[in-house]
Amino acid sequence: MSPVRIGVLGCGRIGRMHAELIAKQVPNAVVTAVYDVVADASAALAGELGVSQAADPSEILGAADVDAVAICSSTHTHIDLLVAAAEAGKAVFVEKPLALDLADVDRGIAAAEAAGIPVQVGFNRRFDPSHRYVRHRVEAGEVGDVHLVRISSRDPAPPPLMYLDESGGIFCDMTIHDFDMIRFITASEVVEVYATGAVLIDQAIGKVGDLDTAVIVCTHENGAISTIDNSRQAVYGYDQRVEAFGSAGMAASENPLTATAVTRTAGGTQAPTLPYFFLERYIPSYLAEWDAFVEMMEGAPSPVTLADGRAPLVIGLAAWKSVREHRPVRIDEIG
Amino acid sequence: MSPVRIGVLGCGRIGRMHAELIAKQVPNAVVTAVYDVVADASAALAGELGVSQAADPSEILGAADVDAVAICSSTHTHIDLLVAAAEAGKAVFVEKPLALDLADVDRGIAAAEAAGIPVQVGFNRRFDPSHRYVRHRVEAGEVGDVHLVRISSRDPAPPPLMYLDESGGIFCDMTIHDFDMIRFITASEVVEVYATGAVLIDQAIGKVGDLDTAVIVCTHENGAISTIDNSRQAVYGYDQRVEAFGSAGMAASENPLTATAVTRTAGGTQAPTLPYFFLERYIPSYLAEWDAFVEMMEGAPSPVTLADGRAPLVIGLAAWKSVREHRPVRIDEIG
Amino acid sequence: MSPVRIGVLGCGRIGRMHAELIAKQVPNAVVTAVYDVVADASAALAGELGVSQAADPSEILGAADVDAVAICSSTHTHIDLLVAAAEAGKAVFVEKPLALDLADVDRGIAAAEAAGIPVQVGFNRRFDPSHRYVRHRVEAGEVGDVHLVRISSRDPAPPPLMYLDESGGIFCDMTIHDFDMIRFITASEVVEVYATGAVLIDQAIGKVGDLDTAVIVCTHENGAISTIDNSRQAVYGYDQRVEAFGSAGMAASENPLTATAVTRTAGGTQAPTLPYFFLERYIPSYLAEWDAFVEMMEGAPSPVTLADGRAPLVIGLAAWKSVREHRPVRIDEIG
Amino acid sequence: MSPVRIGVLGCGRIGRMHAELIAKQVPNAVVTAVYDVVADASAALAGELGVSQAADPSEILGAADVDAVAICSSTHTHIDLLVAAAEAGKAVFVEKPLALDLADVDRGIAAAEAAGIPVQVGFNRRFDPSHRYVRHRVEAGEVGDVHLVRISSRDPAPPPLMYLDESGGIFCDMTIHDFDMIRFITASEVVEVYATGAVLIDQAIGKVGDLDTAVIVCTHENGAISTIDNSRQAVYGYDQRVEAFGSAGMAASENPLTATAVTRTAGGTQAPTLPYFFLERYIPSYLAEWDAFVEMMEGAPSPVTLADGRAPLVIGLAAWKSVREHRPVRIDEIG
Repeated sequence: MSPVRIGVLGCGRIGRMHAELIAKQVPNAVVTAVYDVVADASAALAGELGVSQAADPSEILGAADVDAVAICSSTHTHIDLLVAAAEAGKAVFVEKPLALDLADVDRGIAAAEAAGIPVQVGFNRRFDPSHRYVRHRVEAGEVGDVHLVRISSRDPAPPPLMYLDESGGIFCDMTIHDFDMIRFITASEVVEVYATGAVLIDQAIGKVGDLDTAVIVCTHENGAISTIDNSRQAVYGYDQRVEAFGSAGMAASENPLTATAVTRTAGGTQAPTLPYFFLERYIPSYLAEWDAFVEMMEGAPSPVTLADGRAPLVIGLAAWKSVREHRPVRIDEIG
Repeated sequence: MSPVRIGVLGCGRIGRMHAELIAKQVPNAVVTAVYDVVADASAALAGELGVSQAADPSEILGAADVDAVAICSSTHTHIDLLVAAAEAGKAVFVEKPLALDLADVDRGIAAAEAAGIPVQVGFNRRFDPSHRYVRHRVEAGEVGDVHLVRISSRDPAPPPLMYLDESGGIFCDMTIHDFDMIRFITASEVVEVYATGAVLIDQAIGKVGDLDTAVIVCTHENGAISTIDNSRQAVYGYDQRVEAFGSAGMAASENPLTATAVTRTAGGTQAPTLPYFFLERYIPSYLAEWDAFVEMMEGAPSPVTLADGRAPLVIGLAAWKSVREHRPVRIDEIG
Repeated sequence: MSPVRIGVLGCGRIGRMHAELIAKQVPNAVVTAVYDVVADASAALAGELGVSQAADPSEILGAADVDAVAICSSTHTHIDLLVAAAEAGKAVFVEKPLALDLADVDRGIAAAEAAGIPVQVGFNRRFDPSHRYVRHRVEAGEVGDVHLVRISSRDPAPPPLMYLDESGGIFCDMTIHDFDMIRFITASEVVEVYATGAVLIDQAIGKVGDLDTAVIVCTHENGAISTIDNSRQAVYGYDQRVEAFGSAGMAASENPLTATAVTRTAGGTQAPTLPYFFLERYIPSYLAEWDAFVEMMEGAPSPVTLADGRAPLVIGLAAWKSVREHRPVRIDEIG
Repeated sequence: MSPVRIGVLGCGRIGRMHAELIAKQVPNAVVTAVYDVVADASAALAGELGVSQAADPSEILGAADVDAVAICSSTHTHIDLLVAAAEAGKAVFVEKPLALDLADVDRGIAAAEAAGIPVQVGFNRRFDPSHRYVRHRVEAGEVGDVHLVRISSRDPAPPPLMYLDESGGIFCDMTIHDFDMIRFITASEVVEVYATGAVLIDQAIGKVGDLDTAVIVCTHENGAISTIDNSRQAVYGYDQRVEAFGSAGMAASENPLTATAVTRTAGGTQAPTLPYFFLERYIPSYLAEWDAFVEMMEGAPSPVTLADGRAPLVIGLAAWKSVREHRPVRIDEIG
């Protein structure tokens, strides 16, 4: 089969990463064109990869040598690009979150369904070998009925304040990965959310109405309970752990270290640090995500559907309502 | 210094364990007499240890060769025995929970204070080498300001229903250890509790009004947040983990395994199980608890005061109110 | 069944430890008398345990209330005491090494066989839960045919020079445990030894003709190869690891840490130290050793026979010959 | 700086891997041409990478757009290609072993020195993050004076017999990596070797005069002792561990697992397998090796010199002599 030809929309940090991975390390996929609203960014990436630089997204959406687009631009542009891609009949990979507004999301879903295009949402952590191992143990029945899911998800350092301001806040920007993960692990929808949080790292984060430390408790349709804790600043590295506990046992992902080695002296035992951030930790998950995209293009069902993209956003909005009203919030209060 | 002479009140599972440990493995402490409401139980233990069997608690409280009593009887008898010991001027070790009613607890505290007796409450997990390591790292400043505490505390199997019925329920019987732990780790009082739970293991537990699976989120005076998850039935063993996360790092206790060994085959990696329950896991903590008691008898301050015994009970009562009213409950709503 | 009544011969560090364990923590065994050539040592222990102090070994060997003796005295006295115990018809627990001279050992074996007494040699590491786990995996066939055994066995600090001088040197005093272990793990006799070593820690050790660092390679009857490395001074604690590798997999014991806990900071990962020495690491093995002794007294076969005591000594003597002659030495060159 | 332009000589498994890594993942290096004695192999790789296919090595050695060659062909061709590259003034990366004959090696070294070309030998394991961590701890003095190095190095499955026959046998083909590692860790030359081995996996390996299981003990100039164990068939995966023990502590590399995750059930603890073989385990080391090559091209000293390529071969030849003569062999007996 000939390789999937991908046009990349958005050449910021994440778009550039995707483009480089596709171009160099994903079998049966190539990048054919790139676009960014900042022409210098797309020019640099186009040069590096030896692909064409589009002046406008429509150039890519209309190109005969583009089978699919990777929407890696700012969140507020995701849905318009998704709708345009649907109209152009191109397959879509779209980064999370789909949008910060459910009406927008639903508009995108309607367009994609009408066009019948394949779409995959960028929840890469589902493809991480360690988290996936947990899901596989649950699927295989080794954990039994899942009673509890427990996630620690901590970033090494907060993003720039300017970014935070447009991000939808911690629940829609950061925890959204964890909301996806608890749905993935339990295969059960969330029906209620209780969220609480604090500003313990940087008061400026509080001034833009956001939190930097948070704990969220979710109740699932099947009775299971999930807890998530988040921090914007784990100074020891990127801490990403998922645990499923059930009637027959438990399964948990642990953090890899930057080297599997140990030192022992009279003072104790020392070992290396955690990976610093997602580029150090999650490259294998991004590669597997693209392998899955290629399989979808070859006919497999979408591994992360638009419905999978919508649900965590709803939970995130419910979490914000829970914090504001200081009470558990039912998902059906949101939409 | 001559050994501390201890009279043991209550020869059930926990009383027997304490008596045997004191008699055989605690330096500078001896058991001189034992009592149980079931005479056969005290007779057996007295015989095993070669000590006298008291017909009545007052016999022990009045004995010249008793410096301190270990109150290990049923919860509802703790306060009356504490008051009687105070009146008799004996030092007291008392098992958790102090009582299920705060008025009772306060009566006990008043009597102990009036008499000026040394009292230590039986929160043994503070003395576990691994949990204590976490506390020491926090105290040493290695974790920085504590932002989050995260506890998993899971029993291998539920207690008999009859026991459950008088236990105060999961929050006052089981989680009370974890409420103590979060105060111990953070050195900050809890100001608010949100608790939720489910009956996922045995419907009979639900019928007596109890839960078998629970998640609790506590907010501390200093802004830190604690999360606790509990299960009455972790089929893989006694799962006891405490984690403190803060501005400078994190510290966490892990479960020991029954043997530190590993097997690798083509099918993967295997290792032994967790210890089955507290007798397999926490003996070193009980021994250290008694070492601390001996130090208290030699003049050191109480390592676990009656105030430390009262506070987790208040949190437990608040947790029950939170479940009943399905909302976060402030500690000052309880008392 | 009434408890096994044990007389302890030798109240030095190891004799005292055995006596205290038997008296306090071994079910169905008691100490009834103790003897040491230094009367103060036996008096102190007799007082502590409330047992009688013998003026002479023959007092214990002739006592009606002694079923068995624990020979924990200096190595050069082991065989004479074993012979005397055999003549007195007492069962025997005897510490390693049996002797430093094979003719002596054989005299002891002949006496014990003639008398038909039960005898157990003190190779306690066979009873360590982690090393035993390795043996059990081998027995269960999970490792397949054993191809390699690999042992690290490192003490935290060298013994006093005076002790070294009478110890038989590193191979007969320290490595003898490892020679026992490779026989235990493989269930196959050693047929050839190559040993090499160095004096890297303390030149005074070299001056008494001993080594402080050593590597030994043994070939077994069944074709398996074992490697052992020893050091008299692992400053980071008592390092004791055993690994079996075979056609179907591998099994390995790891060191426990003094606490199962971890700290992570920007500088890396820290964990507690290893246990300092055998009293911190091997108490569970000594307890299990005595449980096995009680079972032997109840009719079970000896878990560590005199033949098991003799074989590692032969290997140790061959190792010394190998070092002296700088060549591999066949076991049948020794006897 | 413009990228280093590399011509790849040999497009078998290892040559193909190097070419793909350079082309796709090594910053500041490109592949410009490839050659293989089997034209189909070079054609396929040239097509995949979009580079030119050379009909003869001399085409590459004479090309203006080639700065360096990567010699990845059969061992017996290494030296002739090295000499030709030296004459052509091209820098060289050459795979291990340099040759199986010391006279050949010396001819290559003389030619390279005469030409003054930069040369790096392909001992990739020096660049593995975990083994490198061990070396760094030693360099930093945390281990103190090194007393012992202990390596387990076990392949998952034997190579084809045809390959074995020309490989120089286990010591020159497989253990040669470990001989390099002990020099790297200790920074001290080997002065004596004792090697022993067996045929326990496949009798056909014995029939070509090779071993499949081996243990080697090396003595270093500085008094340290190294032990290495090898197996051609570790059914549980690619087992690669290096440990340095010294006067101040120890440092050890452990195997990474294919996922950092764990399952616990009533039956025990399970975890994933080891990586299967070098392509799963050592890619990061190959990438770091090429980063170092680029640095060498920019003026840094060679990280793995021809002398570093020669020394392990001498040790390997000494190991074979040791096995044949069943005695320790001094390195200066070889050359």
